[in-house]
Amino acid sequence: MEHRYPYPLLNPPRFRWNRPDPLPEDLSVHHWIETLSEADREPVDWSEVDVTLLGVPLSRSSISASGASETPDALRRAWKGFATYNLEEEVDLNALRVVDLGDVKQHVTDIAVCHRNITEAMVAMRTHHPHTLPFTMGGDHSITAMLIKGWKKAHPEERIGLLQLDTHFDLRSLEADGPTNGTPVRNLIESGTLRGEDVWNIGLHGFFNARSLKTYADQAGIRYVTLKKARKQGVDATIREAIAALSQQVDTIYLTVDMDVLDMGLAPGAPAATPGGMRTEELFEAVRIAGTYPKVQAMDLVCLDPLRDVREASVKAGVHVMLSFLTGLVQRKG
Amino acid sequence: MEHRYPYPLLNPPRFRWNRPDPLPEDLSVHHWIETLSEADREPVDWSEVDVTLLGVPLSRSSISASGASETPDALRRAWKGFATYNLEEEVDLNALRVVDLGDVKQHVTDIAVCHRNITEAMVAMRTHHPHTLPFTMGGDHSITAMLIKGWKKAHPEERIGLLQLDTHFDLRSLEADGPTNGTPVRNLIESGTLRGEDVWNIGLHGFFNARSLKTYADQAGIRYVTLKKARKQGVDATIREAIAALSQQVDTIYLTVDMDVLDMGLAPGAPAATPGGMRTEELFEAVRIAGTYPKVQAMDLVCLDPLRDVREASVKAGVHVMLSFLTGLVQRKG
Amino acid sequence: MEHRYPYPLLNPPRFRWNRPDPLPEDLSVHHWIETLSEADREPVDWSEVDVTLLGVPLSRSSISASGASETPDALRRAWKGFATYNLEEEVDLNALRVVDLGDVKQHVTDIAVCHRNITEAMVAMRTHHPHTLPFTMGGDHSITAMLIKGWKKAHPEERIGLLQLDTHFDLRSLEADGPTNGTPVRNLIESGTLRGEDVWNIGLHGFFNARSLKTYADQAGIRYVTLKKARKQGVDATIREAIAALSQQVDTIYLTVDMDVLDMGLAPGAPAATPGGMRTEELFEAVRIAGTYPKVQAMDLVCLDPLRDVREASVKAGVHVMLSFLTGLVQRKG
Amino acid sequence: MEHRYPYPLLNPPRFRWNRPDPLPEDLSVHHWIETLSEADREPVDWSEVDVTLLGVPLSRSSISASGASETPDALRRAWKGFATYNLEEEVDLNALRVVDLGDVKQHVTDIAVCHRNITEAMVAMRTHHPHTLPFTMGGDHSITAMLIKGWKKAHPEERIGLLQLDTHFDLRSLEADGPTNGTPVRNLIESGTLRGEDVWNIGLHGFFNARSLKTYADQAGIRYVTLKKARKQGVDATIREAIAALSQQVDTIYLTVDMDVLDMGLAPGAPAATPGGMRTEELFEAVRIAGTYPKVQAMDLVCLDPLRDVREASVKAGVHVMLSFLTGLVQRKG
Amino acid sequence: MEHRYPYPLLNPPRFRWNRPDPLPEDLSVHHWIETLSEADREPVDWSEVDVTLLGVPLSRSSISASGASETPDALRRAWKGFATYNLEEEVDLNALRVVDLGDVKQHVTDIAVCHRNITEAMVAMRTHHPHTLPFTMGGDHSITAMLIKGWKKAHPEERIGLLQLDTHFDLRSLEADGPTNGTPVRNLIESGTLRGEDVWNIGLHGFFNARSLKTYADQAGIRYVTLKKARKQGVDATIREAIAALSQQVDTIYLTVDMDVLDMGLAPGAPAATPGGMRTEELFEAVRIAGTYPKVQAMDLVCLDPLRDVREASVKAGVHVMLSFLTGLVQRKG
Amino acid sequence: MEHRYPYPLLNPPRFRWNRPDPLPEDLSVHHWIETLSEADREPVDWSEVDVTLLGVPLSRSSISASGASETPDALRRAWKGFATYNLEEEVDLNALRVVDLGDVKQHVTDIAVCHRNITEAMVAMRTHHPHTLPFTMGGDHSITAMLIKGWKKAHPEERIGLLQLDTHFDLRSLEADGPTNGTPVRNLIESGTLRGEDVWNIGLHGFFNARSLKTYADQAGIRYVTLKKARKQGVDATIREAIAALSQQVDTIYLTVDMDVLDMGLAPGAPAATPGGMRTEELFEAVRIAGTYPKVQAMDLVCLDPLRDVREASVKAGVHVMLSFLTGLVQRKG
Repeated sequence: MEHRYPYPLLNPPRFRWNRPDPLPEDLSVHHWIETLSEADREPVDWSEVDVTLLGVPLSRSSISASGASETPDALRRAWKGFATYNLEEEVDLNALRVVDLGDVKQHVTDIAVCHRNITEAMVAMRTHHPHTLPFTMGGDHSITAMLIKGWKKAHPEERIGLLQLDTHFDLRSLEADGPTNGTPVRNLIESGTLRGEDVWNIGLHGFFNARSLKTYADQAGIRYVTLKKARKQGVDATIREAIAALSQQVDTIYLTVDMDVLDMGLAPGAPAATPGGMRTEELFEAVRIAGTYPKVQAMDLVCLDPLRDVREASVKAGVHVMLSFLTGLVQRKG
Repeated sequence: MEHRYPYPLLNPPRFRWNRPDPLPEDLSVHHWIETLSEADREPVDWSEVDVTLLGVPLSRSSISASGASETPDALRRAWKGFATYNLEEEVDLNALRVVDLGDVKQHVTDIAVCHRNITEAMVAMRTHHPHTLPFTMGGDHSITAMLIKGWKKAHPEERIGLLQLDTHFDLRSLEADGPTNGTPVRNLIESGTLRGEDVWNIGLHGFFNARSLKTYADQAGIRYVTLKKARKQGVDATIREAIAALSQQVDTIYLTVDMDVLDMGLAPGAPAATPGGMRTEELFEAVRIAGTYPKVQAMDLVCLDPLRDVREASVKAGVHVMLSFLTGLVQRKG
Repeated sequence: MEHRYPYPLLNPPRFRWNRPDPLPEDLSVHHWIETLSEADREPVDWSEVDVTLLGVPLSRSSISASGASETPDALRRAWKGFATYNLEEEVDLNALRVVDLGDVKQHVTDIAVCHRNITEAMVAMRTHHPHTLPFTMGGDHSITAMLIKGWKKAHPEERIGLLQLDTHFDLRSLEADGPTNGTPVRNLIESGTLRGEDVWNIGLHGFFNARSLKTYADQAGIRYVTLKKARKQGVDATIREAIAALSQQVDTIYLTVDMDVLDMGLAPGAPAATPGGMRTEELFEAVRIAGTYPKVQAMDLVCLDPLRDVREASVKAGVHVMLSFLTGLVQRKG
Repeated sequence: MEHRYPYPLLNPPRFRWNRPDPLPEDLSVHHWIETLSEADREPVDWSEVDVTLLGVPLSRSSISASGASETPDALRRAWKGFATYNLEEEVDLNALRVVDLGDVKQHVTDIAVCHRNITEAMVAMRTHHPHTLPFTMGGDHSITAMLIKGWKKAHPEERIGLLQLDTHFDLRSLEADGPTNGTPVRNLIESGTLRGEDVWNIGLHGFFNARSLKTYADQAGIRYVTLKKARKQGVDATIREAIAALSQQVDTIYLTVDMDVLDMGLAPGAPAATPGGMRTEELFEAVRIAGTYPKVQAMDLVCLDPLRDVREASVKAGVHVMLSFLTGLVQRKG
Repeated sequence: MEHRYPYPLLNPPRFRWNRPDPLPEDLSVHHWIETLSEADREPVDWSEVDVTLLGVPLSRSSISASGASETPDALRRAWKGFATYNLEEEVDLNALRVVDLGDVKQHVTDIAVCHRNITEAMVAMRTHHPHTLPFTMGGDHSITAMLIKGWKKAHPEERIGLLQLDTHFDLRSLEADGPTNGTPVRNLIESGTLRGEDVWNIGLHGFFNARSLKTYADQAGIRYVTLKKARKQGVDATIREAIAALSQQVDTIYLTVDMDVLDMGLAPGAPAATPGGMRTEELFEAVRIAGTYPKVQAMDLVCLDPLRDVREASVKAGVHVMLSFLTGLVQRKG
Repeated sequence: MEHRYPYPLLNPPRFRWNRPDPLPEDLSVHHWIETLSEADREPVDWSEVDVTLLGVPLSRSSISASGASETPDALRRAWKGFATYNLEEEVDLNALRVVDLGDVKQHVTDIAVCHRNITEAMVAMRTHHPHTLPFTMGGDHSITAMLIKGWKKAHPEERIGLLQLDTHFDLRSLEADGPTNGTPVRNLIESGTLRGEDVWNIGLHGFFNARSLKTYADQAGIRYVTLKKARKQGVDATIREAIAALSQQVDTIYLTVDMDVLDMGLAPGAPAATPGGMRTEELFEAVRIAGTYPKVQAMDLVCLDPLRDVREASVKAGVHVMLSFLTGLVQRKG
């Protein structure tokens, strides 16, 4: 049992919701999720914690101007509008204990420091309480490379698979501009963290990936299913196929959701979302299914810009994605 | 034949569209719907009136701040953009005579008075012209309880069924906060106005209903179909199933549409709408089908807040819901 | 010294900012203002507290639909963007100890209960720590009548004056619609809480007051200065004149700021603001000056609707009004 | 006394506000202004009418895309928020009788027809009830030329002066693009309707007038005062100077207000408004003063686009401009 | 080979993107599309050009106020966000050479001149480089009649078919208001340019077509498939059926896409879009399929108003429509 | 005379406006300003160039998320709405030759590289054409330090003064977060580039500067005038006083305008703007005056975020600031 807060690289959440004492039977998400600072007062028995939430307020590594750094706090604020009960699945999330650890410390003008801190935060999490599942609230997509590198550093023996829901390959070269939000998958492959054949990308569509990236993907053996193809067989069936295939190959599957996979009409606050993207209910079901598979051991949600959102639609979709995944987790635990 | 305006509890509509004289063959909705004050000048032969519209500009009984009180006038303004002809169904609404009675008088600081007036307005309508079908433009969802109580008071012998399209159960306890927009169905059951088994709710989804409400629904025998389940068999088939079942049990079916059942990307002006909700075309078809069934004798549309709308999308969806229901009515009449 | 939280009618703030420990020398407002729940853990020595903040999330008593109930939390969130140091006045607000007590409990469907609770909350505050100055975050303007009635109930011997910055008289009759946001001043006069001649209203302008209200004001002996006249001699000089006059007559001056006094271009989130209103810097200076006068013993800020704001401009103006008044308070203590 | 509606070129207003009967003592503007269709039922005694309102829903003659055609109805809708009593001036507008005649008929694809109709509508007004003052709600600025030509046609013996509040000269050549909204003043001068020296333009500022237009203005003898200069001596004093000068020269002064004279922060719905423009209170006072002068016999308000407005700020400013002018009219009548 | 720019009726694009030299392998659309002025410097070998783009910045012929005139430049700006590679179809658009010719010269106050110029611009294009496919960026829908008349004038012997994706019939009479955006199909039929049976309209829905227009369509032999019916068999199958049928009858098929066919939640910048319209992915696939058919020889995209768009969603959908059609073109060429 | 483009660290502007040939007498700004790529084709005689424009699309060094990187292109687009003629000053800007050099190359993930490039770009400009005045379009305020360091590197003998119009001191310590947008003035002082007494800051106001920064400013000898004080003597007089004082001390005055000095109601797109800030006309006049003084040799404009702007109000204000300064420049030469 850990007694002290073991994260010098984290700041506790900037604010917290006051929780009624005692908690009522019907919980709202903002009362259910615990924040670190509360956890800190009494020693946390990490073995009881199922999921740890981590904010990564970094978007200065984004190619286009982005306010994705505001996402962790925006999600925390929007939790208030959600109950813990999923009526469609008849699942109550309060079967899980979820602790919000706060945000990775970021440097304003040294992005390399930001990236290092993210990797080390993941290492620390995997070291201090390896049985909890980390859910990261980005931030731009560059952070996925750093988080998975942290996992790999903590578990060098594991073969890691990546399940990616995205409009883009994120396979740009790191040469010109370093580890931007356009590069995480290439970064992971070229650093030897992942093998190309252990990457599945679902939801690519439209005119938003250069041909050379497809060539790279093909050469690297990356598996990908465009949205049109995924819809033909069902997005849910596609997810199951991807996880089944990955489960044969890898020890751990990391799920990354780039919110720009959504249709821009439904997610106006995902700056790179485009017309003709995924519908919210398709995405919610996809991550719920992913949550039911035991090898899916970590997840992040990235590239949402609350500053450009309309009526919080995209932020609420982000919360819904998170809760849908946790629903799957409850179902996995049975 | 009634000669005098029999509604001391109503205000005539605050404005009216000037109607060309004579009316052209191709009608726009704002020229086709008659307003009470015009009707008033010459005695109305109520036996010729098919539908009466009633505004209920009440939203101070809403749990969250809401401008749903602005909906009746917003709908009246938006009528202008619609023709009476439904090309997909080859139905011309001008087969119906529709009279807008105006708005129920509301009190600013005494919500109980507001609610009483709503009930009495329904009683008066059922007394003065029982053969017209009342369509109510809310207001928040608390009004549904008051309207159905009015119906019951006018027709104590009738067994009434409720067909509800909603993201929520609306089964909260009235104890803490009285008859809010979270309570109408419970209100109706606990007051003995409806039986639990005479309620069908279609479209529930997401994390927006506490578990205890589901327990209550189950214990009360309420029938409900989540959106995911409804989509599997088709929303239209689900509606038909619900009405068929209700028709076996009840004398009269009251249809209530909470606009928050819609996806928030499509109905940004329904404050409680969420991501992953119903699509507009699903809703339009659902209410059209409902309109074709003879036992469906009243309808309301609630929880739309024009003050938060984007480019009138939600208000126009509201008009479309109303006209789709009236299309079904024409088809019912044959 | 009070040890226990003496407010059964209040809810603690729904969220609180995590405060660094120890506090840095340069404070941001959200770190400086203490929240009740923290205060509660260790007994509060009320004699050290200068100002108590009270939220009144009530806007269902507003004539027009309003989200003013969201203002207290919106102000709390916006505190984060402000330092405690006022460079123009060379005043550091941290010379004051300010405690946020939370929000008065409100009832959803019984406005009379809401109003009673507000009055009783003020009575409790005046009873438990009469030496702290209460600053109330509304809510709609109906609450001012309730707050001053509470003050009067706690201090029946005091003659109270009202300094009002407003576009409107707020002198409507209570007969038709009860104690709405259009009535507080009349409510106070007719209930014998205030005398007409102890009311000064500054900032009235435009076509937003019926002639009969002016007649009432004249008959009641209310003093008022339209914005045009106030600008001729300077808004600041007008404020000084008003306070000087009131100070001759009354024991205590209550300052109420209706945010609709501001020009609507500068305060889009004050629903009743109009073109040609007060400029923000005029208002900030006016309340700062008021803060310097010893007889000004309470203040409220009302009729701001964060749901309609544009880029938080009005909410930030609201915070600025509050901090400007507190600046005057430091200068008064000085 | 005219009995029949004498305007084949007008459509009555598309909607009208229901007026309470009897009218209350405290009037709102939408209850006070009469619409033609009501007037039509009982013969109008035009000698009792002080002001006639005329809508000109034309903006297809605008150089840039504009929704100024929506302005007449937008103003009619926004009347509802205003009382007839001007507290600052202690003037009640209901001393005037104002009749809304409706809108000049427009052709969708033949702008010359639109322009002719406007001219003829003014001729008809001046013929049928020459003692009423016409107030025209534009539309784009091209209409001013047509309206004044109509006046001249009805009163060929009169020398007409133009008082213009505008960011622009509106002196573009008609050669390339005909009578657009950039040309009305030149149009009037070159058609011999006005003399250059009878034009005063107040409020010009910034980088929005080509040098050649200034040269033209100088050569034509047009008087103009930039906003910076007007502010130095006071906008009000400038207006008085202009009217005094014009009154020496002309029989009739026509006042035209291009809403783009306002600062774009205060009038976001005036598409050509710019930063650094006039403040609303300066404009309100300017037109009020103009209203007090007997030779000011007609007014229009143009170039407001309600489709781009933010929270109706510009439309409300437009109503305020109209009511301020009418305030001056009451003061003129004494 | 043409050496000189043969278009006296066109203005070159107002701006152009600087193209890197040499062009990189991975192209963005704004680097790939050539602008006329560049083409002009060196003689263009038109035989190498596959597609010419033509802007028609006309919306003053629109019944309702519209900023569709801003669409050509808005599309040109939005090109920047798209790659030339369509991953779903594995097609690289740079297999085509596309030249942007600029905009047809428009007159501000003489709409007949605008319309004549459009027709003549099409004649000139068909004369100078008949082997290039013209893609026109509207403008309102009135332009389609003018463009097809131009085609007919250049190719009087050809029988032309029209494939229309639209919410509306566009069959209004030209009598009252001339060739507005409500009339193009009737205009073409009544002028003898098209036969009624050579028109297919897909996507009609809702309450936006008067009954008399349906009667006209039926009498003229126009084929139409409402959106509901098209979805039952698949929008893609419907398109194929329409083109197969037309291909039997006509020499050339002209494709016109009125962006208001889209759901207004997804295309807020298409002013006449309505709830319940087509989804973007349905439209993208429809035009891609159309592009694969050899008889489809021209296309336009109309009735998009960038001034009312939200976060450029509709403009981006417009670019996507254009690129989807070009994808089909590449596939057609094989 | 330079023949080759001497800036390896710059990218030419991404787009350029097509200029009519020959240029008309009445110029619009977008036709008047030359872009580098045009200049490049024919050798530029730099001795004829008065002003060079430089874009710095950097905002990842901003403490809060910012889209200030989009400002250079936003200004270039907005130029189109302005004429070169300033009517109030009777100055035609085309007396100056202004060349847009394009943007400094930025690195996505290495901010130090960005900053170095900015410094070197200024060095190159001062080396290649020292007689042209550089006007820089930021970017966030961190760039000012880099630009002035470049100037100092090119002219090590010069004593440089800084005239700053800002809501903030920008004197934060560089220790924690490096050269962010909160640090430029401290950066310049601590690096020995400027002396504290050579800095004048005008426009500070509100609660947006920590007390320790004031202490630092006092100790460093920085001169500053809060907005309230500046207004008492006139902003224009304050500017003259500041420049007069600086001119006694320094060789060169660098003017930096942080757009957040403006009132947030007028500049919603300046993310750090606050209520009660400077009015646009005050700022325009201030920079015009500064432009008239010979020692003012460089200017930048920073911290404008076009992504958050409302109807381009702030971007247009930015263009107006630039043109007002250039007006002063013409007057200086004149």
